[in-house]
Amino acid sequence: MDYNQFFDGALSDLREQGNYRHFADLERRTGDFPHATHRDAAGKERPVTIWCSNDYLGMGQHPKVLTAMHDALDRSGAGAGGTRNISGTTHDHVLLEGELADLHGKEAALLFTSGYVSNWAALGTLAAKIPNCVILSDALNHASMIEGMRHSRAQRVIWKHNDLNDLRAHLETLPKDQPKIIAFESVYSMDGDIAPIAEICDLAEEFGALTYLDEVHAVGMYGPRGGGVAERDGVMDRVDIIQGTLGKAFGVVGGYITGSAQMVDFVRSFASGFIFTTALPPAVAAGAAASIRHLKDSSAERMLQRARVAELRAQLDQIGIPHIPNPSHIIPVMVGDPVKCKFISDKLLNEHGVYIQPINYPTVPKGTERLRITPSPVHSAEDMERLVTALEDLWHQCELARQPMAAQ
Amino acid sequence: MDYNQFFDGALSDLREQGNYRHFADLERRTGDFPHATHRDAAGKERPVTIWCSNDYLGMGQHPKVLTAMHDALDRSGAGAGGTRNISGTTHDHVLLEGELADLHGKEAALLFTSGYVSNWAALGTLAAKIPNCVILSDALNHASMIEGMRHSRAQRVIWKHNDLNDLRAHLETLPKDQPKIIAFESVYSMDGDIAPIAEICDLAEEFGALTYLDEVHAVGMYGPRGGGVAERDGVMDRVDIIQGTLGKAFGVVGGYITGSAQMVDFVRSFASGFIFTTALPPAVAAGAAASIRHLKDSSAERMLQRARVAELRAQLDQIGIPHIPNPSHIIPVMVGDPVKCKFISDKLLNEHGVYIQPINYPTVPKGTERLRITPSPVHSAEDMERLVTALEDLWHQCELARQPMAAQ
Repeated sequence: MDYNQFFDGALSDLREQGNYRHFADLERRTGDFPHATHRDAAGKERPVTIWCSNDYLGMGQHPKVLTAMHDALDRSGAGAGGTRNISGTTHDHVLLEGELADLHGKEAALLFTSGYVSNWAALGTLAAKIPNCVILSDALNHASMIEGMRHSRAQRVIWKHNDLNDLRAHLETLPKDQPKIIAFESVYSMDGDIAPIAEICDLAEEFGALTYLDEVHAVGMYGPRGGGVAERDGVMDRVDIIQGTLGKAFGVVGGYITGSAQMVDFVRSFASGFIFTTALPPAVAAGAAASIRHLKDSSAERMLQRARVAELRAQLDQIGIPHIPNPSHIIPVMVGDPVKCKFISDKLLNEHGVYIQPINYPTVPKGTERLRITPSPVHSAEDMERLVTALEDLWHQCELARQPMAAQ
Repeated sequence: MDYNQFFDGALSDLREQGNYRHFADLERRTGDFPHATHRDAAGKERPVTIWCSNDYLGMGQHPKVLTAMHDALDRSGAGAGGTRNISGTTHDHVLLEGELADLHGKEAALLFTSGYVSNWAALGTLAAKIPNCVILSDALNHASMIEGMRHSRAQRVIWKHNDLNDLRAHLETLPKDQPKIIAFESVYSMDGDIAPIAEICDLAEEFGALTYLDEVHAVGMYGPRGGGVAERDGVMDRVDIIQGTLGKAFGVVGGYITGSAQMVDFVRSFASGFIFTTALPPAVAAGAAASIRHLKDSSAERMLQRARVAELRAQLDQIGIPHIPNPSHIIPVMVGDPVKCKFISDKLLNEHGVYIQPINYPTVPKGTERLRITPSPVHSAEDMERLVTALEDLWHQCELARQPMAAQ
């Protein structure tokens, strides 16, 4: 077999389907985020404003985070030097796991190299090792959870997205004494809608299921201490396993789970993706801990983010640009055509200095192609004006439909 | 089901089998590594010398690495803020991938969040997507490769460790036109033995197979520019996919693959574990690039490491402490009993200020329990004297067998 010819063919197919991904080469500037420098393929540099980052609160440039990372570098060096078991557990890891357990009001926490690995390894290990376990998985769960379930080889039941009646119907068909895990997210990344956590916990209690909640798009941003939607809703204690990330609102990198001491120790002891991998650098752990501590005490970033989101929604409504209404910080601006979506994104980048990655199939269903906008406390009124003016111009150019404007 | 009771039971079983892992809480000190501070469960601190780190060359505290990381933190902040596709590709990632491709003389490289993820995602994706692919896997391959193969659902053939005859015998039974990947490592971590790379490439060429080589325990340390054993042996160009880590000799964190432009672009485009995860922080990429650049130019660390390894082997021989002879930098000191292995490790830590994690089943076969020692350029003659004296004392206490001493 000519392997490179095979690879070439598969890549050509992707290009023809419009699904080939070009990465935007960006240089963020500390203190100036969301502004950055974009380098095109020819090496030409131009300033851009990033409107699609998951550094939702700008904590990636917060002085407390950077100081903690500088200090840890000076104190302990670059890498951890080993797996957690073989010389790689530093005191910064221990302190961070303490912060995380406290954040979610749980007995224990376990740190992973990424949110992806934490979902894959934790869900994969629990579902594989609990005898005869069945996972009830929301239809829109993230790829990392899907891979974890697939990895476990456990029985899987997919329930309709955020549909309590469908979840109940599935639970009723399963044997009462079969171990069960209900796996779901709080904020869904592409539509920005939010799960009915309390009602899912009601069902879990009724049917004897564990609840596994992915809060990666919520930690730091919801709840009085940034504990996520479960904290906001007052139901953290009812969720058995809360999974989160240090790479979005907390601004650094890494993933984690929290829960009972036994559950965490069990995953720590049996998850291949935890055991056989080098620990995160102490400086990453120290930066994440500083970020979490800050957001436990400060609601200013959360309040300002909420205001920015409301302001952008209002301005989009003013000019009739369609966006999915949802209760979260994610504004999906609907284009509904993959070619136009990519065209608008390219024009925004090259002519307006605005960077928003187009979201096309297979990340979202065909016909729902979109620009996923994430306003943050560090976007200024001027940034927003430039964005809205550019979108209005391009909506006109592409002859895209507008929503009826508010009465005026 | 009482889930916590189930977790408790499984953990009790681990404890009874002697396989429950206690993590040593360490604080490395920049500039002073391999010396560190150990905190016991009661919070009591004591100084220790680490003899089991995978920061093989002490690059985790190299001034060039730390300066690059400090600079990148000041320049670009803490985290990347997104997946590589959605705002997370920074110029530091692009530069690092260029360094990696150059290191291995390949067209392209792709960065992952860890070496574990790079093996799991790359091998998993290649084997799943190449139609009817069979993987021929060395019997001692790392857990991350095993999980990748398992993930792929592809046909797997396990060949005897480093046994060319067995590999040939398996290749001869497979259909000539079936796509094949031969997956193996250069330096095997627990025994420290090295694969016959050239001869495996001969077989791959004869039977039309791709070669996938894990060099995580070799990059930075072998070859005139630290390109690994394949560079040392002059066969880098004959290996199709070289996988490595930034978390061992390079002293930071992260994993990668290198190879043809098409192969790398294929994995970039199809690997879930690459696509759906937050990119590594720019500072991590910058630190790793600085480390690689330094070790391309400087052989001083490699030479000094080799001298230290030879010196420790000679001193162990002097007092008859058994260690597996191998051509690598890893010295497995054989205890052959799980209880004694743990006992010696505890005594070393608590009474001699020496930290070496015991390696027991299932990481190694029962009866081959060992202390895996990794001498580095930053271990002094004094450190070594303390280690050897402590081992001699404990060998006596435990009444462990000694090898016949060299004629004296």
